[in-house]
Amino acid sequence: MEEVKVIELKESVFADNDAQADQVRDDLRQRGQFLLNVMSSPGSGKTTTLIALIKALKDQYRIGVMEADIDGAVDTQDVIAATGVKAIQLHTGGMCHLDAGMTRTGIDSLDAQGLDLVFLENVGNLVCPAEFDTGASKNAVILSVPEGDDKPLKYPLMFEKADVVILNKVDVLPYFDFDVDKFQTYLRRRNPGCDVIRISAKTGEGIDDLADWVRRAVDTWRG
Amino acid sequence: MEEVKVIELKESVFADNDAQADQVRDDLRQRGQFLLNVMSSPGSGKTTTLIALIKALKDQYRIGVMEADIDGAVDTQDVIAATGVKAIQLHTGGMCHLDAGMTRTGIDSLDAQGLDLVFLENVGNLVCPAEFDTGASKNAVILSVPEGDDKPLKYPLMFEKADVVILNKVDVLPYFDFDVDKFQTYLRRRNPGCDVIRISAKTGEGIDDLADWVRRAVDTWRG
Repeated sequence: MEEVKVIELKESVFADNDAQADQVRDDLRQRGQFLLNVMSSPGSGKTTTLIALIKALKDQYRIGVMEADIDGAVDTQDVIAATGVKAIQLHTGGMCHLDAGMTRTGIDSLDAQGLDLVFLENVGNLVCPAEFDTGASKNAVILSVPEGDDKPLKYPLMFEKADVVILNKVDVLPYFDFDVDKFQTYLRRRNPGCDVIRISAKTGEGIDDLADWVRRAVDTWRG
Repeated sequence: MEEVKVIELKESVFADNDAQADQVRDDLRQRGQFLLNVMSSPGSGKTTTLIALIKALKDQYRIGVMEADIDGAVDTQDVIAATGVKAIQLHTGGMCHLDAGMTRTGIDSLDAQGLDLVFLENVGNLVCPAEFDTGASKNAVILSVPEGDDKPLKYPLMFEKADVVILNKVDVLPYFDFDVDKFQTYLRRRNPGCDVIRISAKTGEGIDDLADWVRRAVDTWRG
């Protein structure tokens, strides 16, 4: 098994996370790097989605990945094995989210010089990561069909913070009571403007649309 | 739609949550009440499981339910409509977990006098609720098949704290790459002693086993 670089993170010493996040974002922009913060519940398919997305984009961009987890290095091993891109594991030491200081430590540890596109897979949690600006260029939120169509009502902040909401596991729609129209209605109450993309990371459905979204976002970011 | 009693919780003033939790537990025991703290990711089926379980137990016990959410009252409305038991909604004001002081406020607001059995549906989150002892008699953790068999590796504390792990949505096992043996192996690394019960809250499979588990736990609790 591939040796994985593991970074043990400590809680940030910066009192003003928002200011620190703006600084991270400014630095990214100056280097022409796009950082996508990917958030979701545990098990909604962040890693599988990233692997499919990286395969679609890696001939065009130099890509890096930061996998944040409380423990373990399973996702990083999977990403490296499946895509060959540069990937590191961030351990949060039990913490439920990443803040901007932790994200900066991750970027520095990834040695992100020369990368065009960095994916941050945040801790699996629909609550806390939404409260902390990581300094990412954009926020993606993944919701999977088995989690239910009511989640924008119950976890409002997470859906408010999303630039794009990715509805994953659409291949199992026939087996679950998930009403896509209801989901859209609930989502629009919280976030009228975000993009919504339906995918199945497992079958590959919708991955081209998601890759196009990333390309447009990178182009806009670089101006 | 049924009018729901909503309690807005504030962060607890008690410095020592563990001492406060022990006090909550002592009070419950003196009143002969059993409190089950139910934790899981968003969308793993806490409410549906509770509804099925309450239907199986409500002729035997006087039951109350506390539904903790960041926002909304959907679950409480569903529980009352489906079972008719006493249920209240706890709003955490954005907080990602319940502590013992918040749990006590909930129990007092539920007016739990005369109830035998109270279910606490914690905030949907596999991280933070595990860090705070609520004072419950026992902890149940629900994992649903679509979330994946690797979750005990990634969210170790949650699975360590479980007295019973409920594997839900087993009806969709054919449509997901969930290896039950792997899951058991990973779980046992974190928690060699907990009970494991497989259910489908949707089809009713395994609900009798879960109801039996609750009956035994209540009997043991009352001594």
